[in-house]
Amino acid sequence: MGVIEGRTWLQIIQPVDCERRLREEVVGRIGVTVDGHPEIFPINYAVDDSGAIVFRTDPGAKLLALVDNATVAFEVDGMDEERRIGWSVLVVGQSRWLRTVEELAAARQLRLAPWAVGEKANYVRIIPTKVSGREIHVSRADG
Amino acid sequence: MGVIEGRTWLQIIQPVDCERRLREEVVGRIGVTVDGHPEIFPINYAVDDSGAIVFRTDPGAKLLALVDNATVAFEVDGMDEERRIGWSVLVVGQSRWLRTVEELAAARQLRLAPWAVGEKANYVRIIPTKVSGREIHVSRADG
Repeated sequence: MGVIEGRTWLQIIQPVDCERRLREEVVGRIGVTVDGHPEIFPINYAVDDSGAIVFRTDPGAKLLALVDNATVAFEVDGMDEERRIGWSVLVVGQSRWLRTVEELAAARQLRLAPWAVGEKANYVRIIPTKVSGREIHVSRADG
Repeated sequence: MGVIEGRTWLQIIQPVDCERRLREEVVGRIGVTVDGHPEIFPINYAVDDSGAIVFRTDPGAKLLALVDNATVAFEVDGMDEERRIGWSVLVVGQSRWLRTVEELAAARQLRLAPWAVGEKANYVRIIPTKVSGREIHVSRADG
């Protein structure tokens, strides 16, 4: 999509740049279906070697119950105030608890800051099925 | 929930503070159901006199098709690096296009920055049915 009215325009972020941004950020938001409607929660996360999103959640937490073999959304976004650009990357994927010793050992190697409470012994992986990104450019005149 | 292991703890944000934070922020994220799964998109928004979330979207945009009379999620979050607090407020509510002249006139009075493309002639209101917020406190020793 190109310039519209010379004010605000949208640019698609290419897949390689979506992946780079996913690897640069550390806080994102997961979208899960709760009683038939979406809910959104911030999480600390990391991207593993396979390109999956990995995060920890608390044993017994509501979120944990929602994210085994579910289709979930994961989003990161940011603003570049200087360049007047807002951007976001959206991942849709299948979530799965990590269960095997090997899976858990690999997950523990990832650098994961805590946006969660407690032992955080449970790791969840989101295996992306769809990744998309967009930038919104706002011209000075529009501000 | 109180202190766990003296490291990281969660605090519920009271309703009045949830509302204050919703009024302070200008960018949030909407969660909508697309083909049976959640997706998340950043939006600029404002809170109207009734406490509803109001945002603009483009005529014909995919998002617009999803948000008439749907149950949607809306989330804002932030980090206080100094105090080592991460917080988020989640709204679940019913979305509705604004259609009447009066509704649209009122919406145009709101201060809405553009995180959208084009004419943005369409306004959507999210009428909250559930508002909740939480803070995650991380102690220095955990960082």
